[in-house]
Amino acid sequence: MNIVFFVFDGITALDVVGPYEVLARLPGARSVFVGPARGVIRTDNQVLGLAADRSIDEIDAADLLVVPGGFATRALERDERVLAWIREVDATTRVTASVCTGALVLAAAGLLRGRKANTHWAVRARLAEYGAIPTAERIVRDGKYATAAGVSAGIDLALALAVELAGKEIAQAIQLGIEYDPEPPAALEGAGDAARAPAMIREAVLARMRAREAELESFDSPAASRRARSE
Amino acid sequence: MNIVFFVFDGITALDVVGPYEVLARLPGARSVFVGPARGVIRTDNQVLGLAADRSIDEIDAADLLVVPGGFATRALERDERVLAWIREVDATTRVTASVCTGALVLAAAGLLRGRKANTHWAVRARLAEYGAIPTAERIVRDGKYATAAGVSAGIDLALALAVELAGKEIAQAIQLGIEYDPEPPAALEGAGDAARAPAMIREAVLARMRAREAELESFDSPAASRRARSE
Repeated sequence: MNIVFFVFDGITALDVVGPYEVLARLPGARSVFVGPARGVIRTDNQVLGLAADRSIDEIDAADLLVVPGGFATRALERDERVLAWIREVDATTRVTASVCTGALVLAAAGLLRGRKANTHWAVRARLAEYGAIPTAERIVRDGKYATAAGVSAGIDLALALAVELAGKEIAQAIQLGIEYDPEPPAALEGAGDAARAPAMIREAVLARMRAREAELESFDSPAASRRARSE
Repeated sequence: MNIVFFVFDGITALDVVGPYEVLARLPGARSVFVGPARGVIRTDNQVLGLAADRSIDEIDAADLLVVPGGFATRALERDERVLAWIREVDATTRVTASVCTGALVLAAAGLLRGRKANTHWAVRARLAEYGAIPTAERIVRDGKYATAAGVSAGIDLALALAVELAGKEIAQAIQLGIEYDPEPPAALEGAGDAARAPAMIREAVLARMRAREAELESFDSPAASRRARSE
């Protein structure tokens, strides 16, 4: 089974490393990290570099494609080279999966039209812009598409795929291997779920995400490009 | 706050990326990935490369040191250069933390003598070889040392540290930002906990880990080195 993990500058690392840690352990899995170009990409905060060992020009098929998220997916939604590659690989997959805002990239590629899907809670409504049906479940499966909620949900997604692709016993062994028996601090009870988190915390996270998006848009907009060119 | 994430060839990626995804979001955090040398290190299965942006020769202090695990920690337990560096940095930290078999490296450095600690369930008893007190809790705190269980426990560890270092509201916002509301597949109920997993699964995981360790030891032993030199 060939598993392709897509990575790009501005990725949220856990979006892809969570699923990798589960799926690369599947018997017979051949896993590869693929980026827009070969080389080290940097995460959303520039802190961590991940190696893209192949470029998208070298890979045109996969049994399982994993598209993670990060603030940079805003730009990927308009990146025709990446979207065309995702469509090309998707045509060959058994399962196409996303974590967090990776779902918006799948949606922008036209793959989720009329399908139920989820993404990070803060941008869930945006799925409808591409004709998908926003669905507030941690893992959403519609046909061969599996879309997870934000960031850490990729681990749950991958374990569900492990059950499906390799059976319950293999999945149990992988879960025990990574000792996945989560126990968030009791003091934070419910804070990981937007529906249960304190409203003040939810507003604080939204405000920070909007500020970050606005900042990225200002670098990325046609007006900013024109300004940059005229300098 | 300066946070140092130690990385090395043979690391288990989620051990370090889980804590990174939480801790790098702390207000004022300056995070850096540090390896035995600068450059890209490869994970235990060779699949993923992570960038070590600094070498241990360049860093001699941290407010928070995170030492992750992986099969390669067997060799690190005997690597005097790495152990001396860990002791040097530890002398400056507010918190020294480990995930998975990273605890055995802290223990080998002499930092856990007489202290309660945990590591991956499969090697927990080995902590006693270094005078630590094996303790079967997901996160074990003893003085400034925080040691987590296997692999995925690093996320829980980091959230607990976020509460301690930045307060409950910041920690809640980080948890919501990464949507950490874990929901392992119901079909796998309890499999992430060695005390509750089916005995057959536990034995299968132990057998595979022992086989892998034996394979690494055969490359790594003095006898193997002598054989290699005489060829």
